[in-house]
This record gives sequence, structure tokens and C-alpha cells, in this order.
Amino acid sequence: MEIPTSTLEIIRLALDEDIGYGDITSSLLIDEDHESRAVFIAKANFVLSGLPFTREVFYMLDPDITFNVFIKDGSKVSKFDVLAEVYGKTRVLLSCERVSLNILQRLSGISTMTDMFVEAVKGLNAKIVDTRKTTPGLRYMEKYAVRMGGGSNHRFGLFDGILIKDNHIEAVGSIREAVKLAKGSHHLVRIEVEVENLNDLEEAIEAGADIVMLDNMSIQDMKKAVRIAGGRVALEASGNVNLENVREIAETGVDLISVGALTHSAAAVDISMKIVK
Amino acid sequence: MEIPTSTLEIIRLALDEDIGYGDITSSLLIDEDHESRAVFIAKANFVLSGLPFTREVFYMLDPDITFNVFIKDGSKVSKFDVLAEVYGKTRVLLSCERVSLNILQRLSGISTMTDMFVEAVKGLNAKIVDTRKTTPGLRYMEKYAVRMGGGSNHRFGLFDGILIKDNHIEAVGSIREAVKLAKGSHHLVRIEVEVENLNDLEEAIEAGADIVMLDNMSIQDMKKAVRIAGGRVALEASGNVNLENVREIAETGVDLISVGALTHSAAAVDISMKIVK
Amino acid sequence: MEIPTSTLEIIRLALDEDIGYGDITSSLLIDEDHESRAVFIAKANFVLSGLPFTREVFYMLDPDITFNVFIKDGSKVSKFDVLAEVYGKTRVLLSCERVSLNILQRLSGISTMTDMFVEAVKGLNAKIVDTRKTTPGLRYMEKYAVRMGGGSNHRFGLFDGILIKDNHIEAVGSIREAVKLAKGSHHLVRIEVEVENLNDLEEAIEAGADIVMLDNMSIQDMKKAVRIAGGRVALEASGNVNLENVREIAETGVDLISVGALTHSAAAVDISMKIVK
Amino acid sequence: MEIPTSTLEIIRLALDEDIGYGDITSSLLIDEDHESRAVFIAKANFVLSGLPFTREVFYMLDPDITFNVFIKDGSKVSKFDVLAEVYGKTRVLLSCERVSLNILQRLSGISTMTDMFVEAVKGLNAKIVDTRKTTPGLRYMEKYAVRMGGGSNHRFGLFDGILIKDNHIEAVGSIREAVKLAKGSHHLVRIEVEVENLNDLEEAIEAGADIVMLDNMSIQDMKKAVRIAGGRVALEASGNVNLENVREIAETGVDLISVGALTHSAAAVDISMKIVK
Amino acid sequence: MEIPTSTLEIIRLALDEDIGYGDITSSLLIDEDHESRAVFIAKANFVLSGLPFTREVFYMLDPDITFNVFIKDGSKVSKFDVLAEVYGKTRVLLSCERVSLNILQRLSGISTMTDMFVEAVKGLNAKIVDTRKTTPGLRYMEKYAVRMGGGSNHRFGLFDGILIKDNHIEAVGSIREAVKLAKGSHHLVRIEVEVENLNDLEEAIEAGADIVMLDNMSIQDMKKAVRIAGGRVALEASGNVNLENVREIAETGVDLISVGALTHSAAAVDISMKIVK
Amino acid sequence: MEIPTSTLEIIRLALDEDIGYGDITSSLLIDEDHESRAVFIAKANFVLSGLPFTREVFYMLDPDITFNVFIKDGSKVSKFDVLAEVYGKTRVLLSCERVSLNILQRLSGISTMTDMFVEAVKGLNAKIVDTRKTTPGLRYMEKYAVRMGGGSNHRFGLFDGILIKDNHIEAVGSIREAVKLAKGSHHLVRIEVEVENLNDLEEAIEAGADIVMLDNMSIQDMKKAVRIAGGRVALEASGNVNLENVREIAETGVDLISVGALTHSAAAVDISMKIVK
Repeated sequence: MEIPTSTLEIIRLALDEDIGYGDITSSLLIDEDHESRAVFIAKANFVLSGLPFTREVFYMLDPDITFNVFIKDGSKVSKFDVLAEVYGKTRVLLSCERVSLNILQRLSGISTMTDMFVEAVKGLNAKIVDTRKTTPGLRYMEKYAVRMGGGSNHRFGLFDGILIKDNHIEAVGSIREAVKLAKGSHHLVRIEVEVENLNDLEEAIEAGADIVMLDNMSIQDMKKAVRIAGGRVALEASGNVNLENVREIAETGVDLISVGALTHSAAAVDISMKIVK
Repeated sequence: MEIPTSTLEIIRLALDEDIGYGDITSSLLIDEDHESRAVFIAKANFVLSGLPFTREVFYMLDPDITFNVFIKDGSKVSKFDVLAEVYGKTRVLLSCERVSLNILQRLSGISTMTDMFVEAVKGLNAKIVDTRKTTPGLRYMEKYAVRMGGGSNHRFGLFDGILIKDNHIEAVGSIREAVKLAKGSHHLVRIEVEVENLNDLEEAIEAGADIVMLDNMSIQDMKKAVRIAGGRVALEASGNVNLENVREIAETGVDLISVGALTHSAAAVDISMKIVK
Repeated sequence: MEIPTSTLEIIRLALDEDIGYGDITSSLLIDEDHESRAVFIAKANFVLSGLPFTREVFYMLDPDITFNVFIKDGSKVSKFDVLAEVYGKTRVLLSCERVSLNILQRLSGISTMTDMFVEAVKGLNAKIVDTRKTTPGLRYMEKYAVRMGGGSNHRFGLFDGILIKDNHIEAVGSIREAVKLAKGSHHLVRIEVEVENLNDLEEAIEAGADIVMLDNMSIQDMKKAVRIAGGRVALEASGNVNLENVREIAETGVDLISVGALTHSAAAVDISMKIVK
Repeated sequence: MEIPTSTLEIIRLALDEDIGYGDITSSLLIDEDHESRAVFIAKANFVLSGLPFTREVFYMLDPDITFNVFIKDGSKVSKFDVLAEVYGKTRVLLSCERVSLNILQRLSGISTMTDMFVEAVKGLNAKIVDTRKTTPGLRYMEKYAVRMGGGSNHRFGLFDGILIKDNHIEAVGSIREAVKLAKGSHHLVRIEVEVENLNDLEEAIEAGADIVMLDNMSIQDMKKAVRIAGGRVALEASGNVNLENVREIAETGVDLISVGALTHSAAAVDISMKIVK
Repeated sequence: MEIPTSTLEIIRLALDEDIGYGDITSSLLIDEDHESRAVFIAKANFVLSGLPFTREVFYMLDPDITFNVFIKDGSKVSKFDVLAEVYGKTRVLLSCERVSLNILQRLSGISTMTDMFVEAVKGLNAKIVDTRKTTPGLRYMEKYAVRMGGGSNHRFGLFDGILIKDNHIEAVGSIREAVKLAKGSHHLVRIEVEVENLNDLEEAIEAGADIVMLDNMSIQDMKKAVRIAGGRVALEASGNVNLENVREIAETGVDLISVGALTHSAAAVDISMKIVK
Repeated sequence: MEIPTSTLEIIRLALDEDIGYGDITSSLLIDEDHESRAVFIAKANFVLSGLPFTREVFYMLDPDITFNVFIKDGSKVSKFDVLAEVYGKTRVLLSCERVSLNILQRLSGISTMTDMFVEAVKGLNAKIVDTRKTTPGLRYMEKYAVRMGGGSNHRFGLFDGILIKDNHIEAVGSIREAVKLAKGSHHLVRIEVEVENLNDLEEAIEAGADIVMLDNMSIQDMKKAVRIAGGRVALEASGNVNLENVREIAETGVDLISVGALTHSAAAVDISMKIVK
């Protein structure tokens, strides 16, 4: 996997913030040349993701490390499953333990929550998508974790999709005018409009939007929206989506359901690194 | 507040990953010179933290921005409270909205969860402390959020405290030997030893540990540990601490209770940025 | 104008490569506190662009510099027009002269060539668009220059648009299969397919492409392509476009004409910086 | 070839600006483990340069790539010549294609134009030299391309040669005074003075200049300058040099002819990368 | 040895400042493919340190270099001892010669001076420790050199130890208050207080300091201080320590003697790199 | 003074290595808004240099700081002279104290030693020049300090002067051949040749060297060298120069005397920063 420069930079910063000028405990207690094998073990059931980044953590500190993946990202793992092993200098293993677990536990937590949403809408048309409500600097990894959990990615940032929101519409004056201004440049990028009621939906469709985001609408209104749209635009449900209401939302017939919690509120899953030799 | 270089770097990376080569929606719809005022509004009750970093987000993109804080970090805020305002170019406000909220919501989430733990042990001696289970790259901000929630910080990283764990002890042969090796260097840094049973506690104390971490011990054993220690060392309870059991743990008389969930599993709180003019 | 971090980095690298450890001539000859005013003067007729970056060059070396723009980017200027002035320490002015001119001359060269292509297709429907054949590291500035010359931008990079080319099709087996694989993810990004003949055009349209690039087709074939497409997809003419044939190409009715030469072969225009006081 | 850190940084920025968070087309269509061989083919006759940097582009994204050079930089190649081959992951090849070609086409364009100037003065004493009118950030590569085309390099930047220009002279008061101030420091660096007429030439020589630049002088005056100098200083012709007048200039007997167009206005040559397996 | 990112950055900056855009002498005179073997030879008797960093200098410029260490850091070497050898491209060897020697000579100078102080207090209880008076950016390397010379390290920076100095005490009002404020946070970090007289020593001990620094005290007072402390705190002698008075200071019974000169005034030792083949 | 990017980077690294994630003592003891005035005081007689960099240290941490210089760099100062004052947040002052002093003491030490050498050759023709034996990363600052002490700078690095040394000559075969290869490129850079005996001196002169370095020659031989050279080249004495022999060396009539000790072995001078309000 090609990892973007900025993600490598995050891994570097994470190692630097943890190790600083040195892991003083390991330096005092562990011989410089001592080598060990360590394994990553699931301490619960979850959807795994993050091993390519975990490997990079060790590799960045010492290119001579050996890292073997036993279970592929995206798999559902069970408590006590051995996910991967790493072999090399004991000091390096210990110095990387926390950072590598912090990444792996967080990403697997996101994949696991995504999987629960995806399972909740099983058999229906709607896709579960993420948002830009990601951890500062970790978006690439977190959107990867969403995919590993079976979800889809919304636009990556402000640069690869046009999403006209209330603030934009207010500044411009009308949905019609806003879509008009947005049209015709960036010809490989679609235009999405956020609306809060059904009137605005109609205006957005007529103005030429490609996708319409239904912001915090009731189930009732979403059903009507699907009828109004009639396939002319894709519809995205957004706002206060949770595991209790997601299936009902999907049953309205919307095409996309975006869930901020996938990345801003997923709890870490429990994984440990154990030196075995 | 002096913000460390590496934290500024994270903010920069977060802006870069979101804005990339440009916020294409705002560029198409908002006039370059248009200015606005926006406010940050609480959408729930929580403990606030992160405004100094939020301010930095805007300031980094445009040093001419005006940012006024209305409520200080560490305060308990109520739904609809106006936390801060920002004034400047509308494009800048919109381009910074998501990154600034991502930081503020996450840190306030951490402060809020910390506050709940602190409240749960109110009146008792034990301090709630964080761990190194933080988001990669965000440790400085997250440990700040823990303090704002009333918690205390454990060591920052591998460099400012000696913590001898099971892997170290196994490599060296015994607690006694491990503490002996660690003593005498780094004379401004204390030595903490992780133990799993009461025998090891005794050995650690005799070896000269300053602090002993009781790893996943039963309430029963923790009580005994407090008696055994008799004030000779500080005791830290660690492992599977939650809001249900934290008070019982505190009542055993331990000095510190470390809670990984504060930073690895706090949900974001709801805050919005609204352009008001 | 918000300038992306990576573009600021290019300006920094350009200053560093030119100044290195110091401008030894100016240090020896010019008093440290001596101040001057300098003006940028057109030495030919051209379409101006680049002044915001030029300003940044000076500002990066010395934030106390004053830089006043007299003519806006995108304007057609005449020989001897005074484009901008800069006031500050003489040493700073002299140290920044070459880098600032290198940027301004190159970008204005691109705007000028773009303008010639745009003028050549005046009154017709086709838009002149750029390509990814830009100078390494300068893409943001060069695509800006294209816009200032009246052209439009194609996708910025490999991340904000799907363009299926011959190598992709060969790897996958067929256009149909390639488009199918590309569909459904990245729902805010359109799909473009490159074709070399009219059969492939039909296949691309049926497969669901949003845009089709006609690669090096004859005028004859382009005319047929327009008829075949019948508005179902947008058509982009590409390959060997020059000022001689661009109008004829536009007259076929294609929607977009991409011109690599705008950024890979535009000659610099002549501009000088003159110290006037 | 040891490549300076700043040039590696440019290559990194070029890859980052093109690939961003990912090459979405290749990720969707090409299997992660699929491997290919690709060749670089000349689509015209030109002087080749840039392969060491092209190799670095691929190597930076994936150190496991194999890159074989078939024709050495500085060679005159013919249409259809195969210049080099690269073998590795197909995704890596496709993701690097554009950046590697952008570098190779630009540098070969510079070498080719340089070669034309060098050929034009064949048999005469004058050397063709470049200027500081290079692309921001690319100076090292562009000056390399000038050498590969048979030209020589002028000073690299403001730090490795003293060049006293009109602005300096005006600030100091006289050529004599300027040279005097410049003398005696930087004892491994020569002093060049720019003059606009023959009187100033005499003054510069007497003041002790090592080299004199004849700025925009007529052929007539350059001839006189050569006689006046009489070998006491080296003479450099500068300003409005083109392929029409360069031989006449060389015939005046000047030692150096500097040509800004080599780096600021060379058109890219046509090269393609073709996946062959 | 794991070298911190910031130290690698210093080595990179050192290579960049020396080599810049190229080693022009070697490029002109040495064939690109020519290879050589070079040895590092002691030109005096001293305590060696720095070879792991020296190796990194070469390795950073060319990962294919071979570097063999013959004598371990911390050893006392004699004039003409061969310390290490390096094999690879001659140009690389010559380009790295100066930077690698600058590091090796400086660090060995520090180790050598440290060794002299350590020898001077041989048989006594006091440890020789360094200070924060290190060369900007080189602290990690210099503190390593102190250890190689037999000394111990004081805190690394402002973040891994609390040292309350006169300015702090003045701001707070009293030693007692200062220590009180410092207590209870950072529970793995000790508290040291700087005092200038014996009254303050008593106050610091009662306030709960872990270590007390005796600033510029007379031998007489240090003796009294040892008696007063009576093992309740560790004592550090500081200020104007030199090879003449260090033993007398040690004989007072203090635990630590900090010597700024180790890092701020050690002279470089003489080492040469010689190409032998 | 324009400070090169790489020097600013060193200052940043120095602050980061000292402050890390925070100055914990000042954070605990000093109120965030408390402000103070501090002065820099000479604790000995010396030649001052480094205040512009010292100012930058404070300014980098907090742009709102006020820094006033009382005595200019290059001045001879006396014990108790107040060199400069700084006003701003007390925490900032304390956090910057050590780094700013480390720079100021080191640079002033270099200026002071340089001044002693310059004084030693007073009245004679020879100039005292530095070498590349500087502290890694600090060359710009250290060469500045040499100038402030009255010395001159040799070439800055490997890129702004050709110096042919024994290793080069051996690789090429002869001085004559080496100079021939070096001639004609880099026409603004002079050629220096290192020789070990008078025969080589003659060969170097005839080959066309501009400067000849007499490496470790006896006083006797240096006198002969001056006679042989007869003004045809400049002569540089090098090797084992100290305050005892420098005047005798100068009296031989050489033009330059290079002294490595200026930068590799100057002791820091004593300066303190005192908070006065």
C-alpha cells in the first residue's frame, strides 16, 4: 500500500511524541542487541484494520524489522486471534508498542462501528458513508478504516467535491444561484447541495445538483424526498444517525447515509502486543 | 499558551488534509473579500476545552483573523452557550470550520469524560490520571484536555519517567534486578514498577520503586496492597477502570487511578460554528 | 488569496536555492538599513498573472515589506505598464528580485498563451482546459495562471477525478469492465474515459462514462463523435492541439479542448524590476 | 549522482501535488499486487537529460522498483528510441508516470535548446552559459540539463559569485567604489561587473573586476570591448541573445554568452511512457 | 542505536550546509564511479565517542556505504589508533569527510574532558553530571558523549525534571510556596531546588524538595550543607567547577557535581580521515 | 539581518530539544499572563556577538516579545556591561533563557578568540580566516562570529570555492592535471591547491592555481614559499596555528592564516540573563 507522505508524517510525529529523546526504561534495562518476537493478539471480537500502518511504525524506527501479517484488514476477528507478529530488536519492539497499538486499536474501532451500521442496513439499497468529522491529521487512515468496515467514503476534503451548505446559500442568495455559480468549473467534480426541507430539494434538483443532502429530516420527509427526487438526483441522509434509527432511514429509499460517529466517536477496541520469545 | 512545534505541525497537517489545493466550493461561491462573524455554540452540556488550539487553526490560515474567547477552557457549559466568536474573511471561516470543530469536539469530549470520572471519586484521595493511549500526534492536546476536565497527567512519553513493565522484568530476570539497573541514572525521574500480585508489590517496594502500578488487581487485592505499601510507595490502579467501578477502586485507598478510555474512547461532543452576519 | 502550504514551500525552496547562505554582493555593497522603492514594469504586451505569489516572495523574506498591486491579475498589459511596486530594505528587494521575476514571468507567459488559445475559439462552445503536464511543484500556480488567461482547469491531480486511460483499460480487459469497477465509489467524482476510436466512444457511453476524451482523433472523427454522443456525455479533444488547428477542433462541437503546451511549453514574458529611489 | 536535499524535496512535492491522498483511478482498477514493465520512448529527436531524477521519482514512491537506463543523459536521441525501462507494481508505475515525464520532458527540452545554441557557435571561442532565470525550485536540475546540452553554468545563486549590477553601482556611487568594497572578502569568489557602455568597461577593468558583463551591447560595441579588454578580464555578452544573433555575438570574441531562454523558455520535448507487459 | 529524529535532522542540516548544491571540487576531479576505502585515525590520545553518528553521516548521503567500527565509543584511544573504516564511492567519502570529522572531534573532545573530571573524583561518592549548556541542536549527541566519558546526565530539558531556580522563587515569593505548587503533578518527575545559602537549604528540605542544588557555595558551606541534609535530599554542587577544585568539592560529600564546561567549552580532539586505497 | 532558513531551523530545533512538550517548572510556578523584563549581563570581558540570533530565539517562541540591543555585535564589552534587554511574558523569558545564552556565549567565545588572533598579527599583512571545522549546523552563525571578531571567512562550504587537496591530487595523478580539470567551469569561483612542499608550490603556480595553501610548513619553508610565489598567487598558511606561533607565521609574508580552533575549540564566555522586574 502506498501511504501518503502526510500519513507517514503523522506516524513520525506519533513516534517522536512518545519516544522523545529516548525510551529511558528500555535503554536502561534491555541490552542493545537483544532480539525478540512479539505478537498482536485480539482481546475481543472486532473488525480488524490498520496493520499496514502498524507495520510502518516499526519499519520507520528500524528498517531491519520483520513484520508478518496473519489476518487481513477487513476481517472479523475473535478474542485471542493472533493478528500479526513482529521480530527484531527488543528495544525497538518496546519503543513502538504503544504507538502501534494506538493506531491499530483506533482504526479497528472505526471498522467495527462501521460494520455495525453496514449490518444494520443489510439488504437495503443505502450505503453507509463517512464524513469529514475525522481526527485531525488521521483522515487517510480513518477513511481507510471505514472502507475496511464495509462503508464507503464521502469526499476526502474540501478539494474533491462541491458541497453547497446553508452558509454558502445564504451568502449567495439562493440555491439556484449557488448551483449556477458552481457549475461548469471542475468538470470532473459533482455538485451536492444540502437542504433542510422539501421545497429546497425541488429547487436544488431544478438548479442541476447531482446529489442532495437531506439535513436532519424526519423519516416522513425523507420518504417524500425520495418520491420527489424520482431518481433525478442521488439522496444522502445526514444528521443524528445512530444504530437505532439507521435501518428506518435506509428504508426510506435514500442512496447514502452519512454517519459522523464512525470517525468522531468510535471507541478503541482491545488489542495487546505480547513478547513471546 | 505556548503550543509545541509538533502540535502546530498537526494543526497544519489537519488543515492541509482538509483544504488540499483549495476549498473549491467557497472559492466558487464566496467573494474573496467578503467578511463574516461566526460563533461557536454548544449543542449539549459538556466540559469545554480546546479553544486555544481552535484559535490557532484560524490564525494559521490567516493571521489577520480576530478570535475572541467567551468561556474559558475547563468550564462546564450548557446547550446553546456561545463559546467563542471569530471574525474575518468568510472564505477563511468556512475553510477552517471543520478542522476547528474536529479539534474542539474531540478535546471537549475528553474533558467531559474526565470530569465524570473525577466527579465519581469526589471526596476521596485518589487522582484520576491519563495514559499514553492517546491519538497518534495529538498527545499534547489530549493531555491538556484531561487537565481541563480535572484529571492529572501521567508521564508524557517514554522519556520522562521510568515504568518497568512485565516485558522488562522478564527480560532482566527479576523486579529487584530491574529496579537496580534503573536506579542512579536520570536523577530527576522517578521509577514506577508494574506488578500483577502482592508478592511482586513487596519485592518492588524493597527494591526501591517510587510508585507501584497494580495491574488489573481485584478490589480485594488492592485493599491489601494499600495496607502492605503503608505509604512507602504511591500506588496506581490500572486496567479495566470504568464509571461503574472507579469509586470502589478509589475507596481502596490507592493514590492514582489511570484510565485509558479518557483518551482512546471518549465520544466527541456536539458543537457547531454558525455564521451570524 | 489563501496559498496552499505546498506552494509556500516552493517559494521558500526557490528563495533558499537562490540566496543560500547569503546574497554576498548586496551584503558587501548595500548598507543593512538602506531602503528603496522598486517597480515591476512590463517590457512587452502580455496577460499578467502571478502578483499574489510575487508579493509572497518578498513577504516571506521580510514581513515588513510593503507591496502594492497596480494592475490585477488577468489583465492585458502593455509594454511599459507599471504592474506593482514594492518598498522596503534595499537588500531584501535585491535578494528577492530574481525569484519574484522568475515566478511572474513564467505565470504571465502561461496566461498569455492561454489567452491566445481562448481568443482563437471565441464565439464557439468549446472551453480551453489545462492538463497535468505542469512544472513539478508549481501546479497550483500554473493552473491559476491558466484561469487568469481565461482557460479552465481540468482535474488537479490523480485524486479529484477518475480518468480511465489505455493502460487501465488494457489491465482490466474492456472499457465496460473498467467503468463498472470505477462506478459507485467516490460519489462526488465523475468518470472520464479516454478513447481512440468511435467504437470505443459508443462503449464508453453505454458503460456510463460522464466524459469521454477523444485522443488524437481526426477532425472528421471528432465531428462524428459529437453526433454519436448527442449530448449524452461531454467530449474532450486532446492531443496535438495548437494555435493553427484549435479553432477547427472547436468547430467540431466538442465541449473541452485540453492543451498541454499551456503549461509545459509557454515562454516566459519579459518583465523587469527597477529600483526607482 | 548525489542529488541535493532540496531537489529531492521538489520531487516529493511534485509527487504529493499529483497523487494527493491517492491515485483513485488506479486504486479502483488495478490490483495492488499487479506488476508491469514500462518503457520511456522518444517521440521526437532531441538531446536527452533527466533520467537520474526520473529514476528518483519511482524510487521515492517505492524503493523496490527496478529502473534501467538505456541511453545516457547528454546523448542525442531519435524518435522511437527507447530511453529507459522501469519494472515494478503497476499502480506505482501509473502513479509516477506524469511526474516523471514532466521532469524528463522539461529537462530534455532545456538540453535540446542548449545544444542548438552550442552548435550555433561551434568552432568559436565563446561558451554558452545559463542564468539564474530558472524555474523556482528546479535550478539544480535545470543547470544540470544545460551541462548535458553542452553549455556551461554561470554562478548557481547569489552566494557563489559576486556580480555587481546597475542597482548596486547606483547605490554605491561608482563602479570603482563598488569593486573596492567587494574586494578582499570571499577570497575564493571572483568579481563580475555589469556595464552598459565602453567607458564603464574601462573603469571596471581598472577597478580590478575579474569578469565584465556587457549588457545589451551592439555587436559593434562588443567588438570594441574585446579590443579594450585585451585579455585583462573575461567578457560576458548578455541580453536578447537568440539563435539568429548568437554566432555573430560569438564572433566578436567575447568569452561567455549567457542565454536566459535556455531555462525560462525552452519547450518540453515529447516523450511517452508505455506499459509493455 | 536509535537516533532521535531531531538528531538526524541536525546531521542532514550539517551535510546540507557543507555540500549545498554540490561538492564542486570532487565533481570536477573524481570520477563518479570511483571507489575508495578511508580510515579514521586518532592524532592524539583521547576518549573516543561519536562513531554511530559518524556512520550516519555517510549512510545518509549514500545508503550503500560500508562502515566498520574498530574501537567502541567510550574507549581510551592512543595516537595512530585506527578507529573505523568506511568504504564506498570516493566522491561520497570526500563530501562527508568534514561533517563526519566535525562531529567525531567534538564529541570525543567532550568525552575526553568528562573523563578528566571523572578521574579527578575517583574513589569518591560524587557523580559528574552535565548541564543544559549544550550546543544548540546537539544536546542528544553531547549528552551521549558525556556518558561515554563516564559522566552522568542531568535532566535532558525543561520537560523531564522540575528545577526551581532563583527567578521562579522570586516570582512565587518563597521556596516553600514554590515547592508546594510544584508538588503533586508530574508524579514521575522529581523536584530540585536551587539555593544560595544554608537557610534556603533547610527551607527547601522542609518544603519537600527531592534534590537541592548548591549554587556557587564555598567548600565550607558545602560541607555544612551535607551535614544539614543528612541524607534527606540529594545535593548537587554547581557553579565554577573546574579540574583544580572538583576533587575538593567531591570531598565535601555532595552527591552530584554539575559541570557546564563539559559541553560548552571542550576543545575538539585531533582526528583525521585518510583515503588509503 | 536576513537569517538563512537553515539557521532558523537550528534555532527551532534548539528550542524544541530544550522545551519539548513544555517547560514544566515555569508552567507550574509562573502565572500565564505574568510579564517581566530581563537583561543580558556580561560576566567577563569579551568580544560580543550573537544578539540578532538571540533575539530570534525569543521572537520565534512569541512574536510579541520586545528585544532591545544596547551594545552592537563586534564590540569589546566589560564585565557587568548590560548587553540587551528583553520584555514580555515571564514564562517565555524563562523558557528561552538557556537556548539564547547557549548561542550568545558560544558565538561571543568565537569572536573573542578570533580577536586574540587578529590582535596577535596586528600591523602585518596576513588575514586571520576560519575553516569548515565548525559545529554541525551552526556554520552560518559561527562564521558570522568570526567576522565580528575581526577575522575573515574562507569558503562557506564545498560549493563556493575549489580547494584541491591531497586526496584529490592522488586520485587524479598530479597537481597539474587536477588544476587543468578544475579550470574553466564555475567561472566565478577561484581555485586553491593544498601543497606540502615547495616543489608542489611551484607546480601549482604553473598549473594556474589562484591560491595555494601551505599545509603544515615550517616557518623557514613558508618564507621561501613567499619568495617563490612572488605575488603570482595568494598564499594561505594552515595547520597547527596557535596564539604562540601566529605572529611568526604572519611575518613570513603569507596572505592568509587559517585557524580551525576559532570554531572548533573556542570556550564559551560567561553571560547571564537576569530578570529585573
